[in-house]
Parts: sequence; structure tokens; C-alpha cells
Amino acid sequence: MRIAQISPLFEAVPPRLYGGTERIISYLTEELVARGHDVTLFASGEARTSAKLVATRERALRLDPAPLKSAIAAHLTMLDEVRRRAADFDVMHFHLSHFQHFPLFEHMAERTVTTPHGRLDYVDLPDAYARWPNFPMISISMRQRRPLAMANWLANIYHGLPLDMYVPLPDSERGGEPYLAFLGRLSRTKRPDRAIEIARKSGMKLKIAAKIDEDDPAYFHDEIEPLVDGNEIEYLGEINEREKPAFLGNAAALLLPIDWPEPFGLVVIEAMAFGTPVIAWNEGAMPEIIDSGVTGYVVDSIEEAALRVGDIGSLDRGEVRATFEKRFSVKRMAADYEAAYIKLTGEKMQEKGGGRTKPSASCSRVIFTSGET
Amino acid sequence: MRIAQISPLFEAVPPRLYGGTERIISYLTEELVARGHDVTLFASGEARTSAKLVATRERALRLDPAPLKSAIAAHLTMLDEVRRRAADFDVMHFHLSHFQHFPLFEHMAERTVTTPHGRLDYVDLPDAYARWPNFPMISISMRQRRPLAMANWLANIYHGLPLDMYVPLPDSERGGEPYLAFLGRLSRTKRPDRAIEIARKSGMKLKIAAKIDEDDPAYFHDEIEPLVDGNEIEYLGEINEREKPAFLGNAAALLLPIDWPEPFGLVVIEAMAFGTPVIAWNEGAMPEIIDSGVTGYVVDSIEEAALRVGDIGSLDRGEVRATFEKRFSVKRMAADYEAAYIKLTGEKMQEKGGGRTKPSASCSRVIFTSGET
Repeated sequence: MRIAQISPLFEAVPPRLYGGTERIISYLTEELVARGHDVTLFASGEARTSAKLVATRERALRLDPAPLKSAIAAHLTMLDEVRRRAADFDVMHFHLSHFQHFPLFEHMAERTVTTPHGRLDYVDLPDAYARWPNFPMISISMRQRRPLAMANWLANIYHGLPLDMYVPLPDSERGGEPYLAFLGRLSRTKRPDRAIEIARKSGMKLKIAAKIDEDDPAYFHDEIEPLVDGNEIEYLGEINEREKPAFLGNAAALLLPIDWPEPFGLVVIEAMAFGTPVIAWNEGAMPEIIDSGVTGYVVDSIEEAALRVGDIGSLDRGEVRATFEKRFSVKRMAADYEAAYIKLTGEKMQEKGGGRTKPSASCSRVIFTSGET
Repeated sequence: MRIAQISPLFEAVPPRLYGGTERIISYLTEELVARGHDVTLFASGEARTSAKLVATRERALRLDPAPLKSAIAAHLTMLDEVRRRAADFDVMHFHLSHFQHFPLFEHMAERTVTTPHGRLDYVDLPDAYARWPNFPMISISMRQRRPLAMANWLANIYHGLPLDMYVPLPDSERGGEPYLAFLGRLSRTKRPDRAIEIARKSGMKLKIAAKIDEDDPAYFHDEIEPLVDGNEIEYLGEINEREKPAFLGNAAALLLPIDWPEPFGLVVIEAMAFGTPVIAWNEGAMPEIIDSGVTGYVVDSIEEAALRVGDIGSLDRGEVRATFEKRFSVKRMAADYEAAYIKLTGEKMQEKGGGRTKPSASCSRVIFTSGET
């Protein structure tokens, strides 16, 4: 199948800095190539990929030191390039959240699929989507769909990770005093304060490995730092990829006491890859990606969370890893996307009276002309 | 003429808070109605206008307390509404800076005109414009065009103000110790530090009426506040519209020692309306809107600025006002836009073989269909 993957231009693919969206696009692209598809990646020039790369911008917006950058204009240029090449693809897969591509592809919406990677409860999204209601959408959790329930949802596909990226630590590297782990930005919506309270109530040590939120450094200094005692509550600063295995792989459990509708939560399946269970607040996609009593617990209060810390020992870390392998591998994710693409192009074939058809040349030509008018 | 005015959705039209773009759109819209045109304003619901209002968003983005707003989606909705009604207009006038409307109107670019109100030296703009090179553009200064010199520039039209909005103070209200005025945000690019140095070197008092920059309050506190002595250098805080006449109308001159390519600079013509000359740095549109030796001076250094403060007395404040009336009235601005619209639709008539033609119904119908596909 001839597939275009269209990434946002904010980060490199895969990302140099933080960027869950671009990581997933990278995993998916590489796996689709491995499965024998003819894949073209539209992304900024730093991309590392085994697909064909089309880069209309040399650097990702966040990595470009230019003082004045226009995200709208940068994406318009890329989207027009995708459109000019549209006849080369059976499916064009957009990973953009706010529909900027809709006007350019409205004549061929049936050959596109859109995965919004962010939350969808922006007040402007339903009205805008209603203007282009035929665009097939793929959610990353059922919870993510809720504010845009009326959309043309083609599939729900959870993210996946390469199985060999994170593996459980060998027993020789495990041990020491048990601790709870908190990983992520130290922002209000991640609720490190709740993590600290849970640790205190449950009597288990907490290690916080997290970056101070750039938008709100006062939150850490005023509200979290005073609670860090360096003993029961330890702050490690930001950790890098090499430090992640020891930190997550040794933890008794990861705490994710968030209070925002997280549409997926990559860190949850990262912990699971190490065999580490997760105790998460009942928000966003948490109840969907955590199998309660198997890979962790979903809780509604500090008290419940503290009780569940006591139950962690009854979970089988091997089972956590096995569930991760079954539900959250890149291969499963890519196979699901492949099935969605086939569903899409199959439906198109039916509409056109069967037979695998390329988009007609005349249609493509109209599109190219319009792009140059 | 049936004219659509399409405003950005960031501020109300006219603006409740700061917003030069929305002020100009409001003045232009009202004047076009006064001239007998059939005008439809696309803006947020707070708009006050004598034109027909089409509001696809109840509140302007900046005035809406909703926590999650999408500027891209909000504008997509409005732009699709403009497109659905496109057959109702002879000309559609977009006041958007980053080309988000181009894909929706590419089939009828010849009936659109775009005034970008901001600077154009964003690195992404030339590539994006080159994808839609036929869109007729109107600059607000010749300097503004420079980073996008290859665009299809239809006209250059300086902003204008209603003549009765600001008038010179009667002699009875003028007097007191002469002072230089600094008005605007206290940000690095406005260079209040230069204004202070100019005042010191020239021996004339400086009054600063300005808002502390929200993005960089440390700049004021660390670098400007220590220079304010309350006597020779006085800081008045932010002033409101009612306080502007006394502040600007009594000033010996307005200082504008900016170091960024300001594409127009409304405050310059506001000062001129009061008969107050302007001493401005040789940046952006300054040399175009200041008639050197008549309405003020354009300078390249602190020394030159200080010397020019000594020359201010030789300028005729009546002549400053007269030049304002001649060059920067709303009537002149609206007449210029009207001429541009006629040039546009006239050219279209010629292409179509003469005769004033409405856009053909079939063309419009194609557009509506595509909007609903």
C-alpha cells in the first residue's frame, strides 16, 4: 500500500526533545515500512526514517532558532506539497489535531485518515469539524472521542512501543528499598502533590523524576519543593533515557494521579514494559489502558490509592509485561492502522464498484491546478 | 459594491482591549457603509457595526474565558462560512496575516484581497505564499512588503483615523513645562531606555505612559524603573482613552525610538492628529509616515534625536494636523480601499470580456459543494 504519514512540524521525527506524537509517528512509520508498505513521511528535515522523506521545512519549529516562525504558514506549505503528490498515495494519514488540513483535502477526504494526538475538548473543534464532517478519524482512546462524539470515527487505536525498547530488569539489578515512582513534568495537572500524599498515607517512599514546568516554575518552588524531605519524598530532577530503566524498572509502582483528561498517557505503557504496575487517577484514558487488578489500579481518591499501594505486591510483574506485549506493541498498533487503511480503501472500492483503483488522473489534475491558482 | 470584511477572531471589532488591527477594520467597515456599500462583517459576536454582522464565534478568542480555545479551528469555521456565502460578494477582504484562508479561496482568489496587518518577516511566509502566488495583497507600508517582495501586491494603503476622534487641544488647555512623551508597551523592542537617554541628552522632561509588558515584566523592573526619577523622567503607568488627549496633545513631541520593523505605527498618526510632532527611529514604516521637517523627524542615533528635540519648536503644529488630515484620515483610507476593490473587479471584468458580472452561479455552486464534501 502507498501510504503518506503527515507529521506536525513542531518536533523532529523521532523527537529530539519531548514529543509523544512524533515518537508514535516514527514507530508507526518504521513498522509500516518493515511490513512492506511504500511509505512517504512528510516531516521536518531532521527526520530519521527508512521511509521516503519529504521535508518542506529544514528544521522542526521548536528546534529552529529563527526568532519569527509561523506554524500556520509552515503547515500550509507542507500540506500543499502533500496535495500535489496526492495521486501517489492510496492513503494519507494526518497526525494533526486542529483540522488545518481539512480545506486542502476536502475533495479526497475518503482517502485520508486523521489521528488527533491531543485532547479534543477545545471549544472550537466541534463547530469546525461539523463543516467537514466526512473526514475519517482515528482516536487514541475512546475517552478522547467524547467531546467530538459525532465525528466520523473509523477506528480506535491505542499507541504501541517497540517490544525491545524497554524490558524488565534482570533480578540481579532489582531490589533495594521499595519505592513509588512519579515521572513527568511538575505541573499542576500532573498533581505531584497527590503523589506525595499517597506516598505518605501508604508509608512507601516516593521518588520524583521530573522536569520543572517551564510555564509555571513557581508551582514547584512554592508548593512541591517544601514537601520534598530527601528521604521519604525524594526529588531526582529530570532523568534521561539511560536512567529510565533503573528508575521505572525498579519501582514498585508508577503513580499517575493526574487531573486532566489525558487522551492516552505513554508513560503508563512504558512502565508496563518494565513490568511495573501503575496506580492512576480515574481520568482520561486511564481506565482503558490499565487492566485493573492485572497491570495496576484506577482510583478516585488519595485513600483508595494508598490502599492500592498495599495491594501492589499481589500483582504479577510478569503478567504486567505480558499484557503490555499483547496490548501495546508497535506491531499491534501498526496492524490496527493497516486494517483501518484497508477498511478505508475497501470502502472506497465498493463505492466505485469494486476493484482496486488508483485515484483518477483527472481528479488529481484538478487538485494540482487548484493548488496553483 | 457588495463587500465582505473578514476580521481575525482574536479581539472584538472594535477592540475592547489593545488591538490595532480590529480598530482599523472597524473604521474601514463603518466608512464603507457610509459610502453606500453593502458591507458584511465577519467577526466575533461582540462586534459593534452598522454593517451586516456574521459571527461564527460568540466571543473573541482573547475575551473568551474558556480554558481551551483553538485559533485554527475558530478561523476555519469562519472562513468556511465566508466561502458558503461567497456568491453574495463582489470582493472579500481578509485581514489575516498568515494565509490560513488561501486554501479555501484558491478558486476565487481574484475576488479576494488580503491586508496582512503584522510584520511579514516570519521565515515561513515566503514559501507558503509561493504556493498561492495569485492572491492579491495590500500592504500597510512599502517597508512591510520587503520580506514578501514577490507577492502580488495590488496597492499600498496607509491606515487612517476618523478626523474627529483626536483633535488639537485648545490653547487654553495647553501649556506647562514642555515634555517629551513615550506611549506604548514597556517592551525591549519599544526601547524606552533610548527615550530616557534622548530626554537626558536634550534636557527636556520625559513622561512615560505605558503598560508594563506582560511577557517581560523584569525588563521594566530591572532596566527601566531604576532610571525613573519622578522628576526629569516620570512614569505615569498605563493611561486610558480619556487621558490620551491631555498626554499626547500637550507633548512637545512623541518619541518612538523603536528597534523593530514596525509595519505602520498607529500611535504616530494619533500624535499627529493632536498636532504633536514625532521623533522616531529609522525603522519599519517610520520614514514613510513621518514627513521629515514637517510632522517630525526620523533619526538614526541618540545624538541626532537629542539635536532634533531642539528643532521641534520650529515645526508648525497646525501643519502637523493638516498633514494628518490630508494623509491619514479614514476617508482617504476607505477611498483607497474602494479604488483597490474597483481595480480588482475591473480587472476581473476585463478578463471576462467586459461588463460588470456577478460571479457565475455555477462557480459558486461548485464552491458550496466542495465546502460540504
